[in-house]
Amino acid sequence: MLIVMHSVASDDEVEAVAQKVRDLGFQPHKMPGAQRIAVAITGNPGPVDPNHFSHLPGVAEAVSISKPWKLVSRETHPHDTVITIATPKLEATLGGGVFGIIAGPCAVETREQTLAAARAVRASGARFLRGGAFKPRTSPYSFQGTKLEGLKILAEARAETGMPVVTEVIDPSHVELVAEYADVLQIGTRNAQNFALLEAVSQIRKPVMLKRGMSSTIQEFLMAAEYIVKGGNYQVILCERGIRTFEPMTRNTLDLGSIPLIKRLTHLPIVVDPSHGTGDAGLVAPMARAALAAGADGVMVDVHPDPQTALCDGPQSLRPTEFAALMDSLRAIGQAVGASLP
Amino acid sequence: MLIVMHSVASDDEVEAVAQKVRDLGFQPHKMPGAQRIAVAITGNPGPVDPNHFSHLPGVAEAVSISKPWKLVSRETHPHDTVITIATPKLEATLGGGVFGIIAGPCAVETREQTLAAARAVRASGARFLRGGAFKPRTSPYSFQGTKLEGLKILAEARAETGMPVVTEVIDPSHVELVAEYADVLQIGTRNAQNFALLEAVSQIRKPVMLKRGMSSTIQEFLMAAEYIVKGGNYQVILCERGIRTFEPMTRNTLDLGSIPLIKRLTHLPIVVDPSHGTGDAGLVAPMARAALAAGADGVMVDVHPDPQTALCDGPQSLRPTEFAALMDSLRAIGQAVGASLP
Amino acid sequence: MLIVMHSVASDDEVEAVAQKVRDLGFQPHKMPGAQRIAVAITGNPGPVDPNHFSHLPGVAEAVSISKPWKLVSRETHPHDTVITIATPKLEATLGGGVFGIIAGPCAVETREQTLAAARAVRASGARFLRGGAFKPRTSPYSFQGTKLEGLKILAEARAETGMPVVTEVIDPSHVELVAEYADVLQIGTRNAQNFALLEAVSQIRKPVMLKRGMSSTIQEFLMAAEYIVKGGNYQVILCERGIRTFEPMTRNTLDLGSIPLIKRLTHLPIVVDPSHGTGDAGLVAPMARAALAAGADGVMVDVHPDPQTALCDGPQSLRPTEFAALMDSLRAIGQAVGASLP
Amino acid sequence: MLIVMHSVASDDEVEAVAQKVRDLGFQPHKMPGAQRIAVAITGNPGPVDPNHFSHLPGVAEAVSISKPWKLVSRETHPHDTVITIATPKLEATLGGGVFGIIAGPCAVETREQTLAAARAVRASGARFLRGGAFKPRTSPYSFQGTKLEGLKILAEARAETGMPVVTEVIDPSHVELVAEYADVLQIGTRNAQNFALLEAVSQIRKPVMLKRGMSSTIQEFLMAAEYIVKGGNYQVILCERGIRTFEPMTRNTLDLGSIPLIKRLTHLPIVVDPSHGTGDAGLVAPMARAALAAGADGVMVDVHPDPQTALCDGPQSLRPTEFAALMDSLRAIGQAVGASLP
Repeated sequence: MLIVMHSVASDDEVEAVAQKVRDLGFQPHKMPGAQRIAVAITGNPGPVDPNHFSHLPGVAEAVSISKPWKLVSRETHPHDTVITIATPKLEATLGGGVFGIIAGPCAVETREQTLAAARAVRASGARFLRGGAFKPRTSPYSFQGTKLEGLKILAEARAETGMPVVTEVIDPSHVELVAEYADVLQIGTRNAQNFALLEAVSQIRKPVMLKRGMSSTIQEFLMAAEYIVKGGNYQVILCERGIRTFEPMTRNTLDLGSIPLIKRLTHLPIVVDPSHGTGDAGLVAPMARAALAAGADGVMVDVHPDPQTALCDGPQSLRPTEFAALMDSLRAIGQAVGASLP
Repeated sequence: MLIVMHSVASDDEVEAVAQKVRDLGFQPHKMPGAQRIAVAITGNPGPVDPNHFSHLPGVAEAVSISKPWKLVSRETHPHDTVITIATPKLEATLGGGVFGIIAGPCAVETREQTLAAARAVRASGARFLRGGAFKPRTSPYSFQGTKLEGLKILAEARAETGMPVVTEVIDPSHVELVAEYADVLQIGTRNAQNFALLEAVSQIRKPVMLKRGMSSTIQEFLMAAEYIVKGGNYQVILCERGIRTFEPMTRNTLDLGSIPLIKRLTHLPIVVDPSHGTGDAGLVAPMARAALAAGADGVMVDVHPDPQTALCDGPQSLRPTEFAALMDSLRAIGQAVGASLP
Repeated sequence: MLIVMHSVASDDEVEAVAQKVRDLGFQPHKMPGAQRIAVAITGNPGPVDPNHFSHLPGVAEAVSISKPWKLVSRETHPHDTVITIATPKLEATLGGGVFGIIAGPCAVETREQTLAAARAVRASGARFLRGGAFKPRTSPYSFQGTKLEGLKILAEARAETGMPVVTEVIDPSHVELVAEYADVLQIGTRNAQNFALLEAVSQIRKPVMLKRGMSSTIQEFLMAAEYIVKGGNYQVILCERGIRTFEPMTRNTLDLGSIPLIKRLTHLPIVVDPSHGTGDAGLVAPMARAALAAGADGVMVDVHPDPQTALCDGPQSLRPTEFAALMDSLRAIGQAVGASLP
Repeated sequence: MLIVMHSVASDDEVEAVAQKVRDLGFQPHKMPGAQRIAVAITGNPGPVDPNHFSHLPGVAEAVSISKPWKLVSRETHPHDTVITIATPKLEATLGGGVFGIIAGPCAVETREQTLAAARAVRASGARFLRGGAFKPRTSPYSFQGTKLEGLKILAEARAETGMPVVTEVIDPSHVELVAEYADVLQIGTRNAQNFALLEAVSQIRKPVMLKRGMSSTIQEFLMAAEYIVKGGNYQVILCERGIRTFEPMTRNTLDLGSIPLIKRLTHLPIVVDPSHGTGDAGLVAPMARAALAAGADGVMVDVHPDPQTALCDGPQSLRPTEFAALMDSLRAIGQAVGASLP
């Protein structure tokens, strides 16, 4: 922490800042500059809250130095976290050099639609099945999901194909129920800072896929993961799914530059969702390929047996044949970049 | 709804779109243009989901025409919604020409701090008391609020000053408890699209203050309000509290242009939170004055008896004397613009 | 400048940073923290370029402390800069407590249209005439302005009404020509970091109105003004005209919170353009009133005798009667906030 | 164009809109809906300016249907534009399946530094040399480039290595001079809507590399290219270099989703600048690989023989050895995706 004083700050004001540092149990260091003085703090075991200082008379700015995350930090834990889930028919891995493929319908609509999608993506090499039973929708008049019925359909799809199930939970009171059916609990972008929900999933012992908030900074994204890990659940998969920008032609702006940056900062695996990240089926395959080339640990792709009839996000869903072609191109790139693909 | 075809779309593709319109029970109108053809839809009672069309072969774009909100629309209900809450000592009003003043500490820290703030803001003319008992914080290591204890302190402050209490709820399972103590339930910016929470507060019969999500468009903001009203709770106060932009010098960018726009689109009252909207105590009074001049129905202001010691958001809190001065200037502007102030 | 080292930086790496500081002629101060070490710099007369350090081995971050602007800083020059322009018929002032009114058509289309607008705004109290002769347009197929002919029309309008003329210059080679006809040269938002143009207008001795870039931070905005002042032209009027955000319902997001912040940081006057800032005639008057209440030094408003026929930006232009009503309401608010209005 | 009326619009208002359509020479089609009426336009040869209608009484919205670009559109010209430049020692190609590599120092500082960078990148396979002689800088106190001296150094580097030179032009009056030395003229992000400069480079017959404005939408980006092509210069290379968002950890947010979208919309080649797009040397190689996998036609990479001493943008520059390693990985991915690399 460095507290920068105004150029007209008085000696008394500087001393008051120094005293406040001492009161907190740390050491102040007055550093005279050419234009202004600053007070540095040492002796603090971790980040100091800038609010202690920023309102004191004469203070221009309180600059934090330490990063505020701890448990998810790669400095704390240098080795990659790897997620492995075994079902009776399949062992699915993501992270640590294994590029995980999560695919399936955006929403579970019917038993037939879900099983058709699951069989198709499994046949092409997917290892995890995605599918939304509880759907957060901007409009209260839009389809809200098949809920418990959808969870049962997903469980049936897992029983048949062996793929562990990734599905969203939107209410802290549903966590136990969803965890009964799902293998990975997804936190959606609109709940990225729903701390009650983050704390609820921190108490279970199943992996959590945490989507980046559409307006979350990378720091906020990691702090949200810190909530889950602090609660005792170390199995967190991060998911970059695009941020909100001024560009209207795509649904979101996929921030692939975050991938190598996040890999540097944290040991948690990160996957990319090119379907929601672009909202445009024609951009999904190029962005999935780019995610792999950028060093992501996996992708999550919407696949629907008949996108034209989809109740939710049809325009961004791949057909099974398109998904199969994507898998072929991902395998070729995986060889080029040294990533292992199923 | 207008479905615009690609310039190379075939006659069969255009007819398939027209048939899909008929299948949905509406009338298609093929409209040949110079470069391309479009298919317009009539006979629909409300918005048509563009997803029905955007994935059909040959379709370039499906353009929605109708607005998706209904119950909160000023077209549906032309008269201003006015919120009035009577406590044994005070009748507090907001909307319909009465500029509501909501003030108090960002967080309820102690009984003394909260009562001191409440007395001070009441003495200067505030009609509603704000104060957070459950605090959503970016870091799990930050102060998380005094919770139930805080609710009790707020109730005591109401008993003494007469001001109805505005406080945040962050978990659907807490709604009943918070509603027991609070007069207005606040939904925070990070929960602006937490639909489980919106549905929970739609079931109570106390006013809800809904903050705009930091990345919510005005349309999404109104759709979130629609969730609450659709559930049967008509007493919704909107709150503009700044959006996230590229500008780093302020905590958020207060979007005051949204005020007259939202007044045009909806009958619900809208207040402005200049404290969270700027994060800078020196900007709070100018922005509160600007909010009144722009036509807002009220402001919500952080006031702390001693901002330097605040556990949360001290740098944006006014001192009681600063708040009193702000009230004087608001009264002067209120006279100029024809708004009634306490 | 504070150079923060990685937690695993070696002693040699820290010493290399210290030596680099000495090589630049300043004093390094090694400051051991609990998790990591930092090196502070003193003895520097102004900002130090972080690029000197950010690529050295072991460096995590180089944090600038000093602000990079000098001549436009209020610390350098505490008193408000006031712009006064006298024509044979009128003395027009802006800044220092005088709220300046700049009004006129977005584009100079015809002699009749411009004179009609000029007479109308003058009759209602405007002191400066705006009007674009050279129009920067997103599309090469849009109306590009009446150019030299337009400048002559503006000069005629000045001769008749007495109002000094504010008009845009878009090419460094036109500066001399435009300055021959105009009293204030405007730099548009798309040229906010066109440094060749900024340097060209720094060489003339007429006031410059510098619009904020639609994606300029406040720091970049002030640095652009610094270019002009550094060249010797001290008469700069800043203009907040909205920034680009994710919100699609308004053309830009007017950042009124920047007004009190900029008044704190610089001595230059700042005006608000609610016409381009919102793109919606219905929002212009509320935002002009809000600008005055927020402490701006003036407003610039599009007024067109017949907005329906405007060749450019008709939807945001006020009719003369609407402008007259706005002036009345501004005078009332001016009295309330202690600003002087014509 | 579809003109949507308010739900309360009168018959006379609808007829006035229809008459306006006829006055413009087109055909109006009144389309009654359940809630409101709309007027569609046919017979227009291209886009109709919405400003003709949006201010008429009773009009809620004027929705454009046609895209406003023509000459750069892939609908107009379906085949990829390929850029080929031959120097006495080398034929350099970009586009049409050939992945172009542009590399060199951000700024031309000295003859030695530039030649060292040029030799190194040529040895690793680069086909185009980048280097800035005229540098647009946020601060007037920063290094502004070596200007004419720098152009001469670049010409010398071309003579020795054979690589055609890409360098920036920042003033319309410099275009002739820069074109004398350079093979490709670069328009920087801050000049992306500097229409005077765009028109100036439209008049030369050398390729132009147009960088996307940091706040340009894809539509605005293509319209800027349209300015150049409309002037008669068909050799335009687009460059995605990141957009400005709320994320502070990277200098910009590289929008790789724009690559396949732009390839769909236009025949012009598009390259990616991962150096300015991230501002972080550690992210350059992953983002260059992602750009190739996403379907870009090339990359432009900052390479400096000694990044620690760079006068400009050192933290984002690769060392020659890092660049050589990047080239190896790009060749491997190129084989996987079917792109030809040198």
